[in-house]
Amino acid sequence: MTQPNAVHDQRVGVWFVGARGSVATTATIGALAMAAGLAPRTGLVSELPEVAVAGLPPLEGLITGGHDILETPLAHRAQVLADSGVFPPALVTALADELAAADSRIRLAPRLSTQRESAQAVEQDIRAFREDNDLDRVIVVDVSNTEPPATQRPELDSLAALEEALDAGHAPLPTSSLYAYAAFRAECPLVSFTPSPGATLGALTELAKEQALPWAGRDGKTGETLVKSALAPMFGTRALKVRSWASYNMLGGGDGQTLADPRAAVSKTTTKGAGLDAMLGYHVEGPMHIDYVEDLGDWKTAWDNISFEGFLGTRMTMQFTWQGCDSALAAPLVLDLVRLTARAHERGENGVVGALAFFFKDPLGGIDHTLSGQWRTLAQWCENLGASA
Amino acid sequence: MTQPNAVHDQRVGVWFVGARGSVATTATIGALAMAAGLAPRTGLVSELPEVAVAGLPPLEGLITGGHDILETPLAHRAQVLADSGVFPPALVTALADELAAADSRIRLAPRLSTQRESAQAVEQDIRAFREDNDLDRVIVVDVSNTEPPATQRPELDSLAALEEALDAGHAPLPTSSLYAYAAFRAECPLVSFTPSPGATLGALTELAKEQALPWAGRDGKTGETLVKSALAPMFGTRALKVRSWASYNMLGGGDGQTLADPRAAVSKTTTKGAGLDAMLGYHVEGPMHIDYVEDLGDWKTAWDNISFEGFLGTRMTMQFTWQGCDSALAAPLVLDLVRLTARAHERGENGVVGALAFFFKDPLGGIDHTLSGQWRTLAQWCENLGASA
Amino acid sequence: MTQPNAVHDQRVGVWFVGARGSVATTATIGALAMAAGLAPRTGLVSELPEVAVAGLPPLEGLITGGHDILETPLAHRAQVLADSGVFPPALVTALADELAAADSRIRLAPRLSTQRESAQAVEQDIRAFREDNDLDRVIVVDVSNTEPPATQRPELDSLAALEEALDAGHAPLPTSSLYAYAAFRAECPLVSFTPSPGATLGALTELAKEQALPWAGRDGKTGETLVKSALAPMFGTRALKVRSWASYNMLGGGDGQTLADPRAAVSKTTTKGAGLDAMLGYHVEGPMHIDYVEDLGDWKTAWDNISFEGFLGTRMTMQFTWQGCDSALAAPLVLDLVRLTARAHERGENGVVGALAFFFKDPLGGIDHTLSGQWRTLAQWCENLGASA
Amino acid sequence: MTQPNAVHDQRVGVWFVGARGSVATTATIGALAMAAGLAPRTGLVSELPEVAVAGLPPLEGLITGGHDILETPLAHRAQVLADSGVFPPALVTALADELAAADSRIRLAPRLSTQRESAQAVEQDIRAFREDNDLDRVIVVDVSNTEPPATQRPELDSLAALEEALDAGHAPLPTSSLYAYAAFRAECPLVSFTPSPGATLGALTELAKEQALPWAGRDGKTGETLVKSALAPMFGTRALKVRSWASYNMLGGGDGQTLADPRAAVSKTTTKGAGLDAMLGYHVEGPMHIDYVEDLGDWKTAWDNISFEGFLGTRMTMQFTWQGCDSALAAPLVLDLVRLTARAHERGENGVVGALAFFFKDPLGGIDHTLSGQWRTLAQWCENLGASA
Repeated sequence: MTQPNAVHDQRVGVWFVGARGSVATTATIGALAMAAGLAPRTGLVSELPEVAVAGLPPLEGLITGGHDILETPLAHRAQVLADSGVFPPALVTALADELAAADSRIRLAPRLSTQRESAQAVEQDIRAFREDNDLDRVIVVDVSNTEPPATQRPELDSLAALEEALDAGHAPLPTSSLYAYAAFRAECPLVSFTPSPGATLGALTELAKEQALPWAGRDGKTGETLVKSALAPMFGTRALKVRSWASYNMLGGGDGQTLADPRAAVSKTTTKGAGLDAMLGYHVEGPMHIDYVEDLGDWKTAWDNISFEGFLGTRMTMQFTWQGCDSALAAPLVLDLVRLTARAHERGENGVVGALAFFFKDPLGGIDHTLSGQWRTLAQWCENLGASA
Repeated sequence: MTQPNAVHDQRVGVWFVGARGSVATTATIGALAMAAGLAPRTGLVSELPEVAVAGLPPLEGLITGGHDILETPLAHRAQVLADSGVFPPALVTALADELAAADSRIRLAPRLSTQRESAQAVEQDIRAFREDNDLDRVIVVDVSNTEPPATQRPELDSLAALEEALDAGHAPLPTSSLYAYAAFRAECPLVSFTPSPGATLGALTELAKEQALPWAGRDGKTGETLVKSALAPMFGTRALKVRSWASYNMLGGGDGQTLADPRAAVSKTTTKGAGLDAMLGYHVEGPMHIDYVEDLGDWKTAWDNISFEGFLGTRMTMQFTWQGCDSALAAPLVLDLVRLTARAHERGENGVVGALAFFFKDPLGGIDHTLSGQWRTLAQWCENLGASA
Repeated sequence: MTQPNAVHDQRVGVWFVGARGSVATTATIGALAMAAGLAPRTGLVSELPEVAVAGLPPLEGLITGGHDILETPLAHRAQVLADSGVFPPALVTALADELAAADSRIRLAPRLSTQRESAQAVEQDIRAFREDNDLDRVIVVDVSNTEPPATQRPELDSLAALEEALDAGHAPLPTSSLYAYAAFRAECPLVSFTPSPGATLGALTELAKEQALPWAGRDGKTGETLVKSALAPMFGTRALKVRSWASYNMLGGGDGQTLADPRAAVSKTTTKGAGLDAMLGYHVEGPMHIDYVEDLGDWKTAWDNISFEGFLGTRMTMQFTWQGCDSALAAPLVLDLVRLTARAHERGENGVVGALAFFFKDPLGGIDHTLSGQWRTLAQWCENLGASA
Repeated sequence: MTQPNAVHDQRVGVWFVGARGSVATTATIGALAMAAGLAPRTGLVSELPEVAVAGLPPLEGLITGGHDILETPLAHRAQVLADSGVFPPALVTALADELAAADSRIRLAPRLSTQRESAQAVEQDIRAFREDNDLDRVIVVDVSNTEPPATQRPELDSLAALEEALDAGHAPLPTSSLYAYAAFRAECPLVSFTPSPGATLGALTELAKEQALPWAGRDGKTGETLVKSALAPMFGTRALKVRSWASYNMLGGGDGQTLADPRAAVSKTTTKGAGLDAMLGYHVEGPMHIDYVEDLGDWKTAWDNISFEGFLGTRMTMQFTWQGCDSALAAPLVLDLVRLTARAHERGENGVVGALAFFFKDPLGGIDHTLSGQWRTLAQWCENLGASA
């Protein structure tokens, strides 16, 4: 795709919260591989003509960095993923130098005595990354472990109350929200790729508005929910009544382990379940499980059983199985979101970007859960962005 | 749904080619049951607000008739279908009188010595049905057995050549096309619900144009192809490359038996296969079988295996199983198409109605194979029809 | 099958605990239908030559009765089951008189102030049933709702302690065990078709021994576990290593509702899980869920995902879906067990009958969980029973 | 497993017909890897205690060689298989020397002007292999491409007639049978791992008898048929009536390409279909397809749909999906068969070895198609072999 020249000069940084996790590692090596011409651009929505028309920053200019609580080198993590079939082992060897360079830009997540201090340390790391690498803008992307929903507290509802609490040495913020706070303070747009609270708290949406920053979320739509958003409208527009829709998910790997904790799983099953009723216009019963099966590693297997009713009450059934590699599905969406959010930032958009609903299980700022509707909204928005260049 | 008053007075007839087959029988008993308030309107697309807005003739005013080569009474056929679970047996009992009346309007398919004579007899039967029942218009619907594709012949390409051939006592027309010819001669719109040649021959599209009649086709999209048209765009808009898509279909019943004949199956697998490549923009390999399994009766089971490639070449798999009742899926679409084609006729549309692509495996006059795109086109067309009332 | 004449004279009674539930109702109408020649003997293991050789009491002579906490007439329950497709509605009409007679032999479950009194009332009802109907023997079959596992208590471990506790007005027994106690006191063999504690408590196995009664259990093997017991040995004898085996079950109906209670589900998932490790000789990880999906009624859908490893570590996958009608699968096994246990009683066997492991998820007295091994054991036992006639 | 000492000294050779194909390559590298302690013995039936008891020649002593029509080095073929996930790429590097040595023992398939000459050349190659490598015995294993069934001809029915035809310069033998002829002439036992005619012709069974050689066949039971032989007895012993059983198979790779030829596929679908009716005792309808899907490579995906009837005629459904790697499933069976056939030869058995039915789709000399029955027969035979040592 040829893209308007103007944006080719933009230097865009990506700051991963969870920079040594499966998704960030896969996105990092993927961006490097594509920039080096070692891999085709399969899976990148931002390379489709309808999206590229927006005039997006090129993959070649992306610089990655981020925070993590682990110190395992990126190349080591990449090797583990390659061995389990997420991408070809040859890439790890071919990109050893580039991976080492990317690894040198990852900072250990600061854990200071107060949230105020931690937030400042995070902010400083991000600002230093931008300056050291001479970047036009940095997009912060949360791809860390899923947190439970936040508990309702007054200091999370207004920015003033939050600042006061932080000044008083309190620690009201969930970790994902602390990073969102620091990102906004550092004048960076944010992408929430997990179902964690992140920027959805009142105090933080207020801060994003105040800083005139765009942000997008939440919870990347990579597998079963993606299929649901393609299939449910079929039942709706054919006037077939869905009687029950059961969703069983199994996965191993780090994300599977996190979701084996029932408190974290609440965040996930909530964002997963929301869309179906919205798409069909009525409540649909059915169990939904996410099970940790160590054996599966980064591969996710989902099975859905849909019982529906047609003409004269006849009952019928549809089932599907989805066998996908979670990180390989998530990583390109992360790169797409970085490029699109960077472009939105460049064009001066602020607040939650509803036009990016296409990428999320729980599309903030968007009311349409159907994949085709989300796609049209995205394409229209991209066309407008391109026209405004 | 409230509908504009004007159309409530319209008396619309349905003339089935194959009036005692599974689909026609199910559509007939369904229309009767709904008109009598004995069944909800599940499965009827024409009852959704986005479609009803067109101002459609009410189900209550539909009068059915048709041709068949069999003399089995409609009530008998209905009982067989009810026993195999297509609809509740109680309906057959409750609607015994109405079924008998509908049966009395079915004529034995004429088989005269020349096609000219046969066509004239068919035309006269249709005209008599319209006059006897004081109908504003009659929609002819082909739900008879699938025929092989037509052999290329000059007299099928132009109306003048066709008339000459018929005058000379020749028999160039496939049966489905003979009925299309008679329908158009009788000034009736046509719905081709099978993949048979029907009105697609050059000579007949010419005749439809000359008579200023709308017609729609072809091959009702009821099962696996319906799912494909919902799922394939998901792979496309996510930039996932489909490597192979295998389609296995099993069904019993009359349609299954017809399709067990490889010559007839060619028509079906051709219309089934066409859309996938069009939706994805490249050729996708994969076997496609339609097998006759007597045991399954009117129930169709399809299994599809989709192998696809994502980010960095990672290979993944999706599979689905569809267990549907063929007649219960087809019958409401037939009623939808009758109401919509009647409305198009009333508003003076002519030629093939591309806006009805939503209902067909091989959508004539429509270039979009995606279900969501077809739905938007349909809804827009209905809105225009309603506005023009 | 011709059977030795001797046993044809035997009058055998069946006393159902849960006589108006789905399984008892289906077994009752099934026995009546087959005796009347209205249905073939499909699904009855006891009609296969290898089993019939034992010389079993004929279906024609079976007399049913039982306890239930509900008063809904059997014919009413049968109609509900027929409407949901468990058996043909015509049977309910044809067997109206027989169902009414069977219904008249069902007693309301006694709920007296002490367990001692309740047990005596149950015993008297069973004795009265045997005498009133002039029966040679009565087999008590527990097909009532699943209970949680019993809490460890000294008075459940020895008969003397139990009797003392009952005399003291205590209520130590789970309901299923109270019925087992009464059955043994009434000198009746017992079949435990549920995973409830029943006769597995030390005090009751002691009582069975003392009374010289045979009994069998537990938890009828009707669906997913049946398939497991056929498939797992395939992996074992082919030296393929099962890495994980996930089991997802959905069902509606009364049993589904009971199992939606996590405490009751413990009994079920325990008996379901036990066999796999035993058959393979190592522990296999994998989630197991039983979900209540009201929409499914008496139909159970299970999906299993088996990940296994072969030569040189290659990982492969097998999946299966099972769509079965729970009561239709359970009812014939109940009749089989009644006939076989009656024969064992007639031949003077006592204690738990391990040779009946073929029928159970948690085969008491049997150590082989493979279906083929259990079948051979059953066939051999039947041959011996027949030879001893 | 400890094995009787006596056999540890035996030097056994394997002569592959199709020595550079996927199965032979995988078996060769597998045997080398296991002998070198680089891979566990997963998938090897001959390592299970019930089979090892026979006193089998150790893997460490196996020497491979064979014929092929291709000259691609074994290491190259191994690399291609490793890249497509059949075994770990690291093995190809680690065993480079051993693979080169194995490759040097493969001869180009002779194609001389008469079958007599070709057969003699094949025989000489095998004899030379035995002598050069100082082997106690050589087992010839046919793992070459599937041939169509042989046409009925008098010279294939008796050895005398065959010899006469060969002397006269005729070419009556299918290729697989020519190799069987040469193997027997070279005094070697034979394993027919494909459905090709091989040694099943009257003239050749006569020759095997005359030479007092054991042989086994045919068509390795690796996937769908294996599952069938585990599942079908479940329906049988539960008295459930199978109404239809549909079998859809897809595979790529060389075997897929061969089977895309309908004439060769006849051999395969015939051996695949034979057992089901035999196991159930009645004819079961249902389509069976083997489709070539290039994309799948060496991975085979099968989907089976089983419709069955239970108590009171209730219809139920079971479906399974099998996603296996064909060569990884076949290769260990080849090694098992070599070890077992070598042991049979050592013990002086001759004629077709029915006790090896466990390994074959079309078990020659065995009448039991159930996996569990075949397993018991195998284990019993092995126990006897061990006892006779």
